[in-house]
Formats: sequence, structure tokens, C-alpha cells
Amino acid sequence: MSKQAPKDVLNRRGFLGAAGLLAAGAALPIGKAKAEAAAQPDPAITEVHDFNKLLGDGVDRRPYGMPSKYEKHVVRRDVGWLTASAESSVNFTPLHELDGIITPSGLCFERHHSGVAEINPADHRLMINGLVEKPLVFTMEDIKRMPRVNRIYFLECAANSGMEWRGAQLNGCQFTHGMVHNVMYTGVPLKVLLDEAGLKPNVKWLMLEGADAAGLNRSLPIDKALNDVLIAFAMNGEALRPEQGYPLRAVIPGWQGNMWVKWLRRIEAGDMPWQTREETSKYTDLMPDGRARKHTFVMDAKSVVTNPSPQAPLKHKGRNVLSGFAWSGRGTIKRVDVSIDGGRNWGTARLDGPILDKSLTRFYVDFDWNGQEMMIQSRAIDDTGYVQPSKPELRKIRGVNSIYHNNGIQTWLVRANGETENVEIS
Amino acid sequence: MSKQAPKDVLNRRGFLGAAGLLAAGAALPIGKAKAEAAAQPDPAITEVHDFNKLLGDGVDRRPYGMPSKYEKHVVRRDVGWLTASAESSVNFTPLHELDGIITPSGLCFERHHSGVAEINPADHRLMINGLVEKPLVFTMEDIKRMPRVNRIYFLECAANSGMEWRGAQLNGCQFTHGMVHNVMYTGVPLKVLLDEAGLKPNVKWLMLEGADAAGLNRSLPIDKALNDVLIAFAMNGEALRPEQGYPLRAVIPGWQGNMWVKWLRRIEAGDMPWQTREETSKYTDLMPDGRARKHTFVMDAKSVVTNPSPQAPLKHKGRNVLSGFAWSGRGTIKRVDVSIDGGRNWGTARLDGPILDKSLTRFYVDFDWNGQEMMIQSRAIDDTGYVQPSKPELRKIRGVNSIYHNNGIQTWLVRANGETENVEIS
Repeated sequence: MSKQAPKDVLNRRGFLGAAGLLAAGAALPIGKAKAEAAAQPDPAITEVHDFNKLLGDGVDRRPYGMPSKYEKHVVRRDVGWLTASAESSVNFTPLHELDGIITPSGLCFERHHSGVAEINPADHRLMINGLVEKPLVFTMEDIKRMPRVNRIYFLECAANSGMEWRGAQLNGCQFTHGMVHNVMYTGVPLKVLLDEAGLKPNVKWLMLEGADAAGLNRSLPIDKALNDVLIAFAMNGEALRPEQGYPLRAVIPGWQGNMWVKWLRRIEAGDMPWQTREETSKYTDLMPDGRARKHTFVMDAKSVVTNPSPQAPLKHKGRNVLSGFAWSGRGTIKRVDVSIDGGRNWGTARLDGPILDKSLTRFYVDFDWNGQEMMIQSRAIDDTGYVQPSKPELRKIRGVNSIYHNNGIQTWLVRANGETENVEIS
Repeated sequence: MSKQAPKDVLNRRGFLGAAGLLAAGAALPIGKAKAEAAAQPDPAITEVHDFNKLLGDGVDRRPYGMPSKYEKHVVRRDVGWLTASAESSVNFTPLHELDGIITPSGLCFERHHSGVAEINPADHRLMINGLVEKPLVFTMEDIKRMPRVNRIYFLECAANSGMEWRGAQLNGCQFTHGMVHNVMYTGVPLKVLLDEAGLKPNVKWLMLEGADAAGLNRSLPIDKALNDVLIAFAMNGEALRPEQGYPLRAVIPGWQGNMWVKWLRRIEAGDMPWQTREETSKYTDLMPDGRARKHTFVMDAKSVVTNPSPQAPLKHKGRNVLSGFAWSGRGTIKRVDVSIDGGRNWGTARLDGPILDKSLTRFYVDFDWNGQEMMIQSRAIDDTGYVQPSKPELRKIRGVNSIYHNNGIQTWLVRANGETENVEIS
């Protein structure tokens, strides 16, 4: 059990002598001093990490707590047919079941190219090599002894809403927009690590490489690397989850999720991009003229109404709360507009909760519903003045060949019975 | 499986007619419109909510994700001997394993007087009665249709550090300071609910009552109730956890945890405090002269170094990160001082991460350790100018009879071998 025997925490006392305790060796003003033996690891803990084993009705029935059984429907879901195997697939964050701006770690969408790497942190290393003065290898303990910072950022897959390029495809914001999550990261600024290795003057790009079976790798421009990139070991206060890169991942604020290399094992410095698979045959945007946009890193401003939505229909006339998320890879959300008539008229939503740089931002419209059909849309405006475009506007420039970077305005049709559907206005 | 069959999300399409969709009945500019049938709940989901059932190596092996098996030691723990049964006991947040300012919901300490109430949200009601114009009963759906806000607040049990009144007792910050957590709540301002019921002019106090077996109840001054109290249904983005009051709890920012009534079922308006068990025989502070302080609601500024600490000894000479939390029930943290010589000399810590009102605030000191013994302390200063007192200063005024409101400065002795102990300087 997780109980620590009383004698371990209470009974073993010693009295400190007035020995010198300072660097300088000066005596401390200790009159009465008590000390305890260091706590021993509790070997029984491993047994109770079976998270479903109930230990009784009181505390510690779950040493690591779980949601209520009445919330069983609040889970990540995949769509089965997207990819050949679960190892190279994706599941989606249940956005319509969330509130506030923090995504619970257990509900953050997953996207893997070759499954989840299982890594013992004691064995993990991060190498920095290439065009550096001093190639370095860090253990996890090394990294955790370096100055760290905490930042809340959204992570969005470049292919989020990708199925919608060719029209309304997926019936639920979990599936249309659920490849995004938002957590607080703790990590070391990449600049601190690079300063230690010493970049040669001709460094223009880095290559980040994962320790998964895919060895996923991406090229990262040095300006971004030195600006706000973190090498993170914690999310939402605890260690990274396995499917989010445990024990170490890159955090590339505002840029597409594929670049946030998980299970990060190596950073190589170079003078040109590596042209890896994930930035040439994949994660490039095929344009109508047959050419492809490359290095489209930034996720532009976007929003979605999560409630009502197909998985969360309206159930009551009268008072209701419309709610959703907005985000921008270029800065903070300045305003969110909402329309209930398919974009003819717009009102301003109420933003609530911390409004942070490159973070999901929560918006609400408190409204009365008299049972009329509605065509609900939202559009985000960020602090650069950028306005989220309509899907027709996007397609006019980018065509429909692409999978990536669809930040078009989403439309939900709410019927008189409250049922809500993914529809397309062209 | 959590898989939604392809046809459910993709294949069933209908085309919208150009029917009137607006409140005013005007036709919408719909050229091509596609709609999907509303998603059906997936009956198979209940089966995969067995969180330990692995479904493969890819996505969805855990529809609700869990930490790595290498993090099994990161759990809430109790101390066994504190109370007669687990139903009326407490376990503690593993502060020394956390970073940033968000406490993962699964690691938030628990304190119950009669175990965890298991409540089906469909059956739950909140009643507002007493000195109101119109007594009301709300369903959960009623509450979720009212205007809501999101706020990050710490919750600290009044008895946190209570064992330390009579000297260094517990060897680890999880046990000395672990009855605190910090999450983002989503809820309706209590004022909105009270306005709906209409308070009579003579209302001075409210009584909040839980639906647990204890029927735990506390009196709340009306000024506080109308100021910043929330009736919350979500924490860290998802539904409240069962042990945190699912489906509904009170959030009383900055005030002692016992007042944040869980499983909230009733709010009664009155003209004087109720003098319940939890504000008379318990949760009052016995002073040296035999009288008791009553209604000591606010949790004063406090801090603790979480790393190093007895459960997280120093392992390396040279570069290290000292880290901890500071918080104040009266506002924001302005500064945190850290001493390594038992309070003779103080330096200023680096605050990092959002610094929010009545929230845990993270501090760091990046330092080099040459192997000397250290007596580590931290002291918090809040934006009212209040300075966290030493334990001797506290005892001079309050004696040692109390269990509650010990916000004294904590001392850790770091020995030359890195082992760290809870010690007392008098």
C-alpha cells in the first residue's frame, strides 16, 4: 500500500549538534534542532500503481486518481480507417467535453509514425553534435539541473482539419479539430543547451531526431531555436506522458506539431535544412499548380465552436452557453467573432481565462435559444491583425490538394431539435 | 474499442435544402451544403474505460492516458496513523515530484471526513434556500447553461503543516506541505446563482452543505460569497474528480480548504453563522490562553522548497536547481527569498510561470553546490507586503496547541552527502 509506516516518518529522530553547517563554516544559531532519516522508497508502491485496484472508500483507493465512472465517454478516439495500423495513426482530443484552457494530459491527442517508444529515463541521452565547438551528451539528470521555465502552449498537428479541405467530412469537433491540445510545459530553453555546446558561426539550421522506431526528424531554423524553443521534460506539472515523448521532447511554440520531436535523442547543427521525409514528401502543401509549399511551419489563427457541436447537441431552449477555443501560432488571440447565421452577421464573444501567447484561448457566448435553426461559425483575430479565413477563401488560393494547414472557418448547423451537424457553406 | 466506425463519421451525408435557418427566417447563402447525422454514443466505450487494458502499441492503447511505468513512485501517499480509518483521512500531493504550477488532477491531495461520495450527475441537485425570495433547485444541466469563468487557484487544507507546530515531525515536503494543490477551475460565479434566487436584505451568511456521508457544512460570509466564490464543475479542463467533489464543489479562493464544500448539494442563506461542527470543535485555533480563534478563513502567505527536500536529496555537486512553491490567500506572490544558512543571509529567487492571484507560484534558484552542508529556507512575500514568519515567531503568538494555519518557514538540512532532513531551528 502507499502507506508509509509511522515510524519511518515520525519516530526516528536525532538531535543535530551545533556543528558548522555553512559553506564558510560559521556556526548556525541552532538551539534545538531535530532531524529525520531520509525517507526510503516504498517498495509497495509498485503494487498499487495498478490504477484500477480499489483500496477502499477513503483516501488512497487510487494513489493516482482517475475520472468518475460517469465520465467514461470522455476519451480520445480514433476513426479507425485513417491509417493502416494503430502504430502509425492518430486519435483525437475530445474538445467538446473540455472547458477552460488546460487539456488533461490523459486526453491529449496522439499522433505516432511508429508507435510509442518506451524509454527508461535512466538510459536516455540527448546528444548535440554537428557544427558545434564541443559535442555533448546529456543524461536526464544533467538536463534537470539546468535552468528551466514554464510555459503554456498549444500543439496543433499540421493535418488538423485536413479532412475538411474537400468539404464537410467528419461529424464532430473531436474529429475535425481534435488534433490540438494545450498544456503547461516545463523545460530548459534550447538556447541554454546550444550555448553550452557552442554553435559554429555558419550554423543556420538544426536537425531534431526522435528515439522512436521512426527516428522521426525535422529541420529547425536556428533563429526559432534560439528564440523560444524548449527542451521539455514535464507537462501539466508531472513528467511527460509516454505518448507525448517521455522523457524528453521539443516544444516549438506556435509551429506545427510534427516539429515538436518526441523522445528527443539528438540535435545536430548544420548550415542547411536536412530535407527529411517529414519536410519533403510529407508536411508540404500541394498547391493547385502542382508545386508544393515547403517549410510552412507556423499554425495560423484558427478557432472552433466546441459547444454546441455534433457530439454536443443543444438540449434545452432558453439559456445556453456557446463555447469554443481560439488560437494563433503568431501570438495572442485579440478577439473572437461568432455568427449564428452562417457568417452574415457577427457578434463578439467573451474571452475568459488566461489569454496567453500561442495558447488555446477560451471563448463563450451566453445566449438564449428559441429553437430556431442556426448556422454557427467562429472566427479568430490575433494580435497581428490576422483574421481567420473562410474555407472558400482558403481554397481560392490553396486549392484542395493539401492535407495540411486548414484553418478555415468551421460551420455547424443546429437543427430545431438541437441536433448539430458539420456542414459546408460555399 | 474506442473506434467509431467509418460510416458513422464519414459516409452518411445529406444535403441541406436552402431552408430558412435564421431567427428572422431569412434564407442563408447556402450553395452547396453537406450535413452528417449526429454522432451516436459508442456503447463499446465503457469497455475500454478499463484504463489498464492495453490495446496495442499505437494510439488508443489507453483512451484515457496514464503516466509512464517509470513514474510509479509519483503518487499521493498517506501516513497511515493519522486517523482511525481511510474514510476520514488524508493523503498528500507529491510536491517534490511536480514542476510548473499545475497539479495533475490525479495527484491532488485528498481529505475526506466520510469517504468519497459517488454521485450520478443526472441525479444531482443544488438547492438554494433560506432567506431568499425564490428558493431554487438546479440540475447539473441547469448550472452548465449559466455563464461560467475559468480561474487557477490553490486549495490548502487549514491543517497543512499542522504536525509541525510542535517541531520537525514529518520527513518530506509531501507530508509537511502536501495538503495543497493548484488547478484551473471552471464554474459559475456564486453571485449569478444567488441573484437568481434573490437574497433578502438581512442575509449576512450562507451555509454550504455537501452530499457526502458527513453532510459536511460550513458558514460563509456573504461578502466573500458575492466577491469571487465559484460553483465549479470542472478542474484542469475536465469534470471534477470524484475525490474533489464530482459533480459540483465550492471554490473559495484563498480560504481554507475545508470551506470548499465538495459534492455541494445545498446553499442556505441566513443572518448569522451556523456554528457547525467544522467551525467550532474543529477548524478553530486553540491559543495559549485556552481561548480559540474562530473563523480564521484566510490562508496566509507561505512557501516551501520542494527540491532539494528529504524525498528529493541532492545527487550531484556543481550545477543544481533549487525549486519550490509560494502562495498567498490574500493576493499574488511578490517575492520569494531563499537562505542556505538557516536564515542568516537571504537571496531573491527567480519566479517563473504565470504569477496569478491566489495561485501557487513557482520559484527557482539556479546554483552551484560544492558539497557544503546547507540549512535551506524560503520565505514568501505577497503583494500586501506580508512576510512569511518563522516558526518561532508564530509560536510566540499562537503557542503550540493548534493544528491549523501553520505557515511558518520550513527548514531543510542538506548534508554533505546530499541527504536532506526536516530540522527545526529555534
